[in-house]
Amino acid sequence: MAVDIALIHFPVINKSGETIGSAVTNLDIHDIARASKTFGIDNYYIVTPYTDQQELVNEIIEHWQTGHGAGYNPARKSALALVRLKDTLDDVIGQVAGERGQKPVLITTSAQLQGISITFAETRRRIETNEPILLLFGTAHGLAPEVLEKADYTLPPIKGITGYNHLSVRSAVSIILDRLLGCMEKA
Amino acid sequence: MAVDIALIHFPVINKSGETIGSAVTNLDIHDIARASKTFGIDNYYIVTPYTDQQELVNEIIEHWQTGHGAGYNPARKSALALVRLKDTLDDVIGQVAGERGQKPVLITTSAQLQGISITFAETRRRIETNEPILLLFGTAHGLAPEVLEKADYTLPPIKGITGYNHLSVRSAVSIILDRLLGCMEKA
Repeated sequence: MAVDIALIHFPVINKSGETIGSAVTNLDIHDIARASKTFGIDNYYIVTPYTDQQELVNEIIEHWQTGHGAGYNPARKSALALVRLKDTLDDVIGQVAGERGQKPVLITTSAQLQGISITFAETRRRIETNEPILLLFGTAHGLAPEVLEKADYTLPPIKGITGYNHLSVRSAVSIILDRLLGCMEKA
Repeated sequence: MAVDIALIHFPVINKSGETIGSAVTNLDIHDIARASKTFGIDNYYIVTPYTDQQELVNEIIEHWQTGHGAGYNPARKSALALVRLKDTLDDVIGQVAGERGQKPVLITTSAQLQGISITFAETRRRIETNEPILLLFGTAHGLAPEVLEKADYTLPPIKGITGYNHLSVRSAVSIILDRLLGCMEKA
């Protein structure tokens, strides 16, 4: 398999649908790195163009990679080793294309049904063929239209049984990675 | 269905396996309430015997139930309405038994295989029969032995494909609720 993920902080939308940049959340770094490590994701890209936010991410990673946290919690160190910081989604696509030898299939996720949809089953099938796949997740109220337009496919929204559709991005990433990559013990 | 969940802050274990009480994490309240609301959980019990921690939980809930947050984000308000604060697990069991008319089946979750195990499929079957079920989740490094001993069953650990087994409790709850209660769009 050749699956990478990217968490986008710009461009995303706010509750009014306006395009904004969001602040990095500490537990997004940790929780999504731990889920990525669990499910065999190769690279977890954090995308933000803001220098202060990049410095924050680097400080947190350094604490757990080479600072006090590295000795205190080796499991956290190995998860955070997957994190890569990038200015823009195009930078991520360029890096993945360079490393994988071809442009990745861009698959977005959304709380609303968007664009050309792909099923979880079809995505699993493509993962098994080792096709390079880049999964995109949005912070704030979701990915901006210009990101959704770049995507090749969109996964269906995660629905429970209640119609309530407001999971945290940490929960959404965890569930989607489990659906795509979790062992079939769930049967 | 008649499913409740409880997040235990005491007694849990630290990395050395000693029994401790843990501090409440703000995003545990939010993320797990939002996942509970998504998947139709009736009550999300937060268990801590510490008065200062109970005050913190109450302040956060009040902010989103009746304070500024209630108007700002009604979706968050409806998720946090599921939260119930209790001193001990026995208090939770007593309340659930009173509301459901019978003692719930206690099912624990663990990063290690423990005690008498139950499959996700068998748990789903029991949920469909409307049997009262209380799912227990531990903070810190997991539930203490005295909690595990009270359980009727333990769900298998969530394994990815890497052997890495250190998900956040927020991720673990999200994945387990999806496996037990998510729509079958995952097929």
